[in-house]
Amino acid sequence: MIYPKELEELIDYFKKLPSIGEKSAERLALAVLDFSQEDSENFSRSIQKIRNTLQKCDICGHITSTKICHICTNSYRNQNVICVVEDYKSIFRFEKIGKYNGVYHVLDGLISPIDGINPDDINISALIKRCNNLNSDDLELIIALKPTLEGEATTMYITKILKNRQIKISRLSYGIPMGAEIDYLDSLTLERALADRKEVL
Amino acid sequence: MIYPKELEELIDYFKKLPSIGEKSAERLALAVLDFSQEDSENFSRSIQKIRNTLQKCDICGHITSTKICHICTNSYRNQNVICVVEDYKSIFRFEKIGKYNGVYHVLDGLISPIDGINPDDINISALIKRCNNLNSDDLELIIALKPTLEGEATTMYITKILKNRQIKISRLSYGIPMGAEIDYLDSLTLERALADRKEVL
Repeated sequence: MIYPKELEELIDYFKKLPSIGEKSAERLALAVLDFSQEDSENFSRSIQKIRNTLQKCDICGHITSTKICHICTNSYRNQNVICVVEDYKSIFRFEKIGKYNGVYHVLDGLISPIDGINPDDINISALIKRCNNLNSDDLELIIALKPTLEGEATTMYITKILKNRQIKISRLSYGIPMGAEIDYLDSLTLERALADRKEVL
Repeated sequence: MIYPKELEELIDYFKKLPSIGEKSAERLALAVLDFSQEDSENFSRSIQKIRNTLQKCDICGHITSTKICHICTNSYRNQNVICVVEDYKSIFRFEKIGKYNGVYHVLDGLISPIDGINPDDINISALIKRCNNLNSDDLELIIALKPTLEGEATTMYITKILKNRQIKISRLSYGIPMGAEIDYLDSLTLERALADRKEVL
């Protein structure tokens, strides 16, 4: 028994966090021990608070402290451009670019027959309903799912369901990440970059 | 405003932890959001608990949930060998080796005239008192402070105060860390390794 039981417990919780190993967890727990009374109370309360106050937006599924999130209620944003994402973390990523002015739809998963995840298990029906309630003529769907078997199966499924509507559907381009060396690129990425090539002039 | 206020708050607390930058703090806070109800309650409670239950050991100054720590009360440990450390984190480090069988004394700082930290500001008088209460004849003091100006000033001070007693006083050896390449070693470390050289036969 090197650490007091209470400290050992906190170390265990830190270890549940991504990319925090034994050593980091110890360092973090010891740092929390050095927090001021106020800081440790607030830190502790803050963990409770995010669980108790954050919920899913009724429209898009993003996490929010209100019934409808600030993106769906923002009248300056184009409610006719919907970016379809796997989870709410992707939304934070997009918002950080600061250039996207449409809204989002969180699927909360991807179709994966091998894991028993069917279209009904993810938030697709709500997306179809949303599309039905909007005017197809200037509706655009940007599917922003990861380039894996599951991501592509989900993209295909959504496209198939909506193909008879006048909706413009696109997906993110696959290709070379900025700054990468062509020489070290994996074959699949290079193949996709070739297939998704874009005319320069 | 990319993150909900509540999440932003938690991110800020993670950022107060050592070597956790903006990006890591975001990742950690989002992971906590994915915790089960039970886990997040316990994590939160655990932070409070270490502050409310852990205190300083009356004898050595180590953190403990009891009045006297489990090292000072352990009758299998040699209470006549005292390892003097800067803070309780050093104790955890020593205990991990699992080879030290003496006890500790936490100074809670180092003498540093430039920062206005005098001998009276750290836990030296309690150490002297401890030494006075023990039989000098087989008392050993191992000073395990970092090799900086402050560490050495503190080592010198303690040694000077106790020099007229029959106490055996040593400090950790300075030298080449295991696995290091001599070619890349800094001059000061090499100089110390030379000065602290040990007879082989």
